[in-house]
Amino acid sequence: VFAGLVSSLYRYVVERGYTHLYISGVEKRQGLYEELGFEPLGPAVVSGGARFVPMAATPDRIAACNAHRLELWRRRLARLADGAGQPVSLLPGPVPVAEAVRAAFHRPPLYHRGPEFLALFGRVRRSLGRLVAGREVALFHGSGTLANEVVASTLAAGRQPGRGVLLVNGEFGRRLERQAARFGLRPRVLTWPWGRPWDLDEVAAALSEEPTGSWVWGVHHESSTGVLNDLPGLVRLAGRRDLRVCADCVSSLGAVPLDLQGVTLATGSSGKALGAYAGIAVVFADPAAVAGLDPAGVPSYLDLAAALENPGPQYTFPSPALCALAAALDEYTEPGRAEARYARYERLGRFVRRRLRAVGIEPLADEGHASPVLTTFAPPDGESSTQFVGRCAAAGFLVGGESSYLAERRLAQVATMGAVTEEEVASLFKSVGCMSVHLSPVH
Amino acid sequence: VFAGLVSSLYRYVVERGYTHLYISGVEKRQGLYEELGFEPLGPAVVSGGARFVPMAATPDRIAACNAHRLELWRRRLARLADGAGQPVSLLPGPVPVAEAVRAAFHRPPLYHRGPEFLALFGRVRRSLGRLVAGREVALFHGSGTLANEVVASTLAAGRQPGRGVLLVNGEFGRRLERQAARFGLRPRVLTWPWGRPWDLDEVAAALSEEPTGSWVWGVHHESSTGVLNDLPGLVRLAGRRDLRVCADCVSSLGAVPLDLQGVTLATGSSGKALGAYAGIAVVFADPAAVAGLDPAGVPSYLDLAAALENPGPQYTFPSPALCALAAALDEYTEPGRAEARYARYERLGRFVRRRLRAVGIEPLADEGHASPVLTTFAPPDGESSTQFVGRCAAAGFLVGGESSYLAERRLAQVATMGAVTEEEVASLFKSVGCMSVHLSPVH
Repeated sequence: VFAGLVSSLYRYVVERGYTHLYISGVEKRQGLYEELGFEPLGPAVVSGGARFVPMAATPDRIAACNAHRLELWRRRLARLADGAGQPVSLLPGPVPVAEAVRAAFHRPPLYHRGPEFLALFGRVRRSLGRLVAGREVALFHGSGTLANEVVASTLAAGRQPGRGVLLVNGEFGRRLERQAARFGLRPRVLTWPWGRPWDLDEVAAALSEEPTGSWVWGVHHESSTGVLNDLPGLVRLAGRRDLRVCADCVSSLGAVPLDLQGVTLATGSSGKALGAYAGIAVVFADPAAVAGLDPAGVPSYLDLAAALENPGPQYTFPSPALCALAAALDEYTEPGRAEARYARYERLGRFVRRRLRAVGIEPLADEGHASPVLTTFAPPDGESSTQFVGRCAAAGFLVGGESSYLAERRLAQVATMGAVTEEEVASLFKSVGCMSVHLSPVH
Repeated sequence: VFAGLVSSLYRYVVERGYTHLYISGVEKRQGLYEELGFEPLGPAVVSGGARFVPMAATPDRIAACNAHRLELWRRRLARLADGAGQPVSLLPGPVPVAEAVRAAFHRPPLYHRGPEFLALFGRVRRSLGRLVAGREVALFHGSGTLANEVVASTLAAGRQPGRGVLLVNGEFGRRLERQAARFGLRPRVLTWPWGRPWDLDEVAAALSEEPTGSWVWGVHHESSTGVLNDLPGLVRLAGRRDLRVCADCVSSLGAVPLDLQGVTLATGSSGKALGAYAGIAVVFADPAAVAGLDPAGVPSYLDLAAALENPGPQYTFPSPALCALAAALDEYTEPGRAEARYARYERLGRFVRRRLRAVGIEPLADEGHASPVLTTFAPPDGESSTQFVGRCAAAGFLVGGESSYLAERRLAQVATMGAVTEEEVASLFKSVGCMSVHLSPVH
């Protein structure tokens, strides 16, 4: 109940956009108030037989001091909602969000030219830049695919647009190929079967035939297959030949530690492993990548140089998605919390793969290249993707498999992005028939 | 208090995504329950001395039967929030939203490939098509500018991309010109000073020099100046010469009755006069406009033909914006309500212009071409846009003037889009000094 009270208070404060809470705290209970995040502003004031301490707290402090309580309450509500028909999302989007993120999303909208919005816009860009070890950040209003359009249009505006190597080992690599073609890019395309990682020897051979200044582009975490490709390895290879690396990090951003210092252009999204809502397309850029570009042929909505230069958004931008992303990034920017998040994702991913193997289901990606936040596999007993997804839904879990690229290959997937808990994942395996048989002892 | 109880119940039900409410109604109060939207499911059941009637209601029925109560409560909260520092938005976005729209936005996110989302996606497309008297509708994830990018890329993929006439009489027309140029379009550009409407005689002369199959493109409601251009007149002109008409209806959609039957391509947005949230770019299309196009050069994210053909979204799509738009469209699709909305907007616009003139401020647009939902004017007493916006903000009202295209011309603007009330607008004139002096008697 106490967790619920704190949670309601917190949500109320954030939704109304209050910046400070003031209380007159009964002196005897000062410890309790401090534990909640309040700090004394001065000495106690006597009023009749009681002594009241003037105290204040900010929403951020309340969130920090009550993280565990807020999370407990969120889970409790989620469980209640479960019972009432709200399924647990184990999809790669929309992902379950933490209570602080949800509350931020529900604040009254801000004007995208106003000072509060602009300050937040700048803060989010800086936080994202730090998260990847230092890159300029441009934000666009749209999906991760939009961010990749920005990369394609930027490459196409370059001096050697016809050159380049594209790495394809799944649906999202294939999509990059289609996007590149629409912008007139004609790269050499290296492909591998679904579930196989990039073969860096083959990549090295292809890159050796590229002229200096050319580029190589691929999907870091190929979320159709659950393969996490070796981006640092690619950066080392390309660095030797002074080639530019572009990476689709849409579903790896926030999932694994990212160092994009050697990457020229990379993309991300607000609605994946960072644990916020869809709506913001992120482009990380080496400023040198846009220097000397001719923007005349770049569509206005995709203009990276303009977006990097402008302190605010170029066009209408939804503040709810931005506020939620800012709250989600707080999880990564406070010391030690990013590492804890990555470790939690790693643990959840291992747990999923172990439980699948325990019932005889082999993940598509081998253990050495498995993404922590998404596992793709063939449903058991020859079942179709649609049947399997339906069976999970009946048990209260949304899993992937309805996209045509999965259904056609009889694949399904379980994502563990955002505020998913191990309990929730464990209950998937308990609740869905033929996922729970032959279980080896847990832990 | 009763309005508050109904409102809280309604919000709870919608946020949880419940589809039906069931009650055991005390028979004596059956009339009250029916007024709230409940319908009896069968005869009363006796329990001791009381008789209970099994009754059920859907959220939609509750919204319909309690529209006035919900609106009263929203205003009351808005007034309270006012006092607590939440300003009234008189901006052309974000716009104030009705309670049903807000509640729909805050439902738990839906998977954009799931059946519930797809059904809603189809419903919103059909509702929008009916709203403009019958056009195919494609939805994209982004702002109104994105929708115009789709038009530019579609025109550029046509057989005569180099031809066309562009009508420019404000900032958004200028933006279309820039967008068109980026796609390699080189139209003839007709321009008029800020605040002046299209001159259809000049347009007719220009169109007479265009070959059959060419196009003319302009902004219907030029929301930099508050001018509502004569789109029906343009359609008649172009029809005589068999030219295609394209129209930016981003800020006229939902503001005035639209008949787009003679328009080949038109654009709209969820976050303007329809009264929902930013996030959805709308393109209305004559299917003939995309027949025979070569999509090879159209960026994937802007592919109109693919979006028209696909029953769902091409890429990740935010369900909160879609749910909110669906709720906002309910205001237009129920018989008689669209007309009531247009009449309310018309009344609000006249009210704003009359009050401005009463203090000696002449709107930029003449009365015959004034938009009902937005009025642009020079702040009184030679004050800068920024000073005027600041003074309104201090009084609790957000008005336009911070965008560089307004500030540079010493202009400000008051929009009355979404769930703005006449009371709120009246209180702007009461609260902001030098807007309230010399007031003529009201009404």
